[in-house]
Amino acid sequence: MKILDTHTCEFDKEFAKILERGKMDMGEVSSIVQSILEEIKNEGFGALQRHIARFDKWEAKSLQDLQISQTQCAKAYDDLPKDLKKALHLAYDRIYAFHQKQKQQTWIDCEENGTILGSKITPMERAGLYIPGGKAAYPSSLLMNAIPAIVAGVKEIIVCSPAPHNELNPLLLAALHLCNITEAYKVGGASAIGLMAYGVEGVKKADVITGPGNIFVACAKKLVFGEVNIDMVAGPSEIAIIADKSANPQYVAYDLLSQAEHDEMASSILISDDMELIKNVQTKIEKILPTMPRFAISEQSIKNRSIFIYTRHLQESIEIANALAVEHLEILTQAPFDVLPYIKHAGAIFLGEYSSEPIGDYLAGPNHTLPTGGSARFFSPLGVEHFTKRSSIISFSAQAIRQMGESCAILAECESLHAHAQAVLKRLDSIKE
Amino acid sequence: MKILDTHTCEFDKEFAKILERGKMDMGEVSSIVQSILEEIKNEGFGALQRHIARFDKWEAKSLQDLQISQTQCAKAYDDLPKDLKKALHLAYDRIYAFHQKQKQQTWIDCEENGTILGSKITPMERAGLYIPGGKAAYPSSLLMNAIPAIVAGVKEIIVCSPAPHNELNPLLLAALHLCNITEAYKVGGASAIGLMAYGVEGVKKADVITGPGNIFVACAKKLVFGEVNIDMVAGPSEIAIIADKSANPQYVAYDLLSQAEHDEMASSILISDDMELIKNVQTKIEKILPTMPRFAISEQSIKNRSIFIYTRHLQESIEIANALAVEHLEILTQAPFDVLPYIKHAGAIFLGEYSSEPIGDYLAGPNHTLPTGGSARFFSPLGVEHFTKRSSIISFSAQAIRQMGESCAILAECESLHAHAQAVLKRLDSIKE
Repeated sequence: MKILDTHTCEFDKEFAKILERGKMDMGEVSSIVQSILEEIKNEGFGALQRHIARFDKWEAKSLQDLQISQTQCAKAYDDLPKDLKKALHLAYDRIYAFHQKQKQQTWIDCEENGTILGSKITPMERAGLYIPGGKAAYPSSLLMNAIPAIVAGVKEIIVCSPAPHNELNPLLLAALHLCNITEAYKVGGASAIGLMAYGVEGVKKADVITGPGNIFVACAKKLVFGEVNIDMVAGPSEIAIIADKSANPQYVAYDLLSQAEHDEMASSILISDDMELIKNVQTKIEKILPTMPRFAISEQSIKNRSIFIYTRHLQESIEIANALAVEHLEILTQAPFDVLPYIKHAGAIFLGEYSSEPIGDYLAGPNHTLPTGGSARFFSPLGVEHFTKRSSIISFSAQAIRQMGESCAILAECESLHAHAQAVLKRLDSIKE
Repeated sequence: MKILDTHTCEFDKEFAKILERGKMDMGEVSSIVQSILEEIKNEGFGALQRHIARFDKWEAKSLQDLQISQTQCAKAYDDLPKDLKKALHLAYDRIYAFHQKQKQQTWIDCEENGTILGSKITPMERAGLYIPGGKAAYPSSLLMNAIPAIVAGVKEIIVCSPAPHNELNPLLLAALHLCNITEAYKVGGASAIGLMAYGVEGVKKADVITGPGNIFVACAKKLVFGEVNIDMVAGPSEIAIIADKSANPQYVAYDLLSQAEHDEMASSILISDDMELIKNVQTKIEKILPTMPRFAISEQSIKNRSIFIYTRHLQESIEIANALAVEHLEILTQAPFDVLPYIKHAGAIFLGEYSSEPIGDYLAGPNHTLPTGGSARFFSPLGVEHFTKRSSIISFSAQAIRQMGESCAILAECESLHAHAQAVLKRLDSIKE
């Protein structure tokens, strides 16, 4: 891992490159994904069938063939080792409890003139969750996507996950049972996004599509945005750690490595005003890295996408973290809550030495589906609000029309919208009469 | 206006067409917009200059030439007729008051084991507002886009609006002054979206872009989504009115016509279980339409995009409104609040005879930037939340690690993420020691 030093004049140039880390070049991918989506839209199941044969290497004979059996899910759940079952339930309960607190309420406000204004919150009717799969299974991703939808009150939740060679990981099946998902399909990649966005024969289109995925999935989600809503466009996972001399180098090393093991493209960034800590973390990483089962992936990530940033002082570390706007930000300083008010942009903020990032991945409670690549400047973690929407409520009274009708008509006329003005003035006339 | 009758067997087929009204074929537009965006991205001001010469027919010599002068805005404001100034202020104050109520708070929740979880709300740093322009001016659109950003606490708000022949409508200038916008550019269409999404020389990129526009603007917003956030992808304006026999046909006619005068593509839909009302509204519209200053536009909209739907009963009217998921929904029934709980999808719901839709366009308070074409199923009205984002807060305690560290490690191992497990287990070890 390279050390960038803010004290040097090359820093700005080097740092600018890191700020560009989130750029996803969808150029080539985009045209491939566009054709996959169009095939699904125009041909329906036939296209799905073809894509599954090509990418997942099995023959699906009918839509029913694609459905994940509930019996199979129940069995997988029953077969779970006791401690894993307990852990999954603990995660479920904590994620559920946290998301309950996010739930927005319908409200109205009454004015003295008899007018009522407000905001009505309704769940989306049908949500499509994409869960990456294959050999690795991410039951935690299912929990993190399904629970906010459940809390929101979404009635129809469907799940798509790829099943290479028509095989599914039992952990995902168990998690489907735990979340009481009754409609799930063995479809992956851009085809899955197409299936959920457009609907295919018996499968109705969704209102919102959420969930992580590779660049094909991210690109497909972006392309169908507008036909459905989506949570965000996300890229590779990343962490930044603001640490001072009080930080435990072993913890820092493991937290950086947990990010690195996700993906060759994952970024792990340590920001510290203490060179001794940086050196110690470096030594630890060099020592631990070769012992990791996912060494090949982690090594690539550490070598090409990870960095130490040596700063002048804590304040500068904070500025750099804000400029990076990372997905996961750990604050390993003597008084982490003193830093919190100054953090402007981060998907999730982990405070103090026990708030290891993996805790947030599994069972702290907040969502682990987070904005990446600097998009924490404008995207939020997945939440209940991604599965609800607002409608404004306007009940204007006769008295309010008497007070404001004239002004409203003036504004309409100044925009040359005569019928708008008349619609209001006719009401005003009837009250005056 | 055609009458569709739910009692007939052709209804489903005809209605299916109306459900498709929101489909925007961006096919051809998309490649044009893509090139405009790429030119802005690669060439910066040079491309802007060219597009302005081509579309707005004037020569901009420098970026400064594009800036709208604050002195000019102040003067336009000072020159406003007294009653219009009063009306603009009334609108401003009411919109501000309503959006204040939307503001979300940062919160934390403390657990007995010492853990703190929460959600930190921060404003976006830089918002770009697109305001359509040209001959017609929409000062109301500026208010509706700027005020939620102001309430959210956005520090840098920039505005783009086209200035054909380098001329701007004084009402927009006055509104810029009223909203205290100090950075505004005479750039329109896809170029404006490119300018705000990528930044050009001295103009920094925005974090979020909001505001209405034609299909080029909508398409450009969709294409830059992910690089920045956007409010929604919106199409032509529309209204549906659920009315029973208690409704005043004149009010219904004017409200339908106010929608029709916006745009040839606007839709006005009356849903009623009372054929007499439908006939009366039809007669009124035929009488009023030719007297409208925007007759040419309104006639096209009424002829091609508007419809009466005759239903069996109020319940069916509600079902149809939910299926349509329109931008503006008026409820002109004897007891409109009895209907409210059953409305699932609508951008804004107007209840009762005095809640004429134009009231919501100008000064009721709720936002007039609303989801169209059925997207109220999943998009919300523009609001303060479009200018803020959340960060999760996670402060796990030693006691919490003792209680849950083991379970977390089990979950990490089941996903084959060994470093994740170790990161937590090392903490657990240190507590046990």
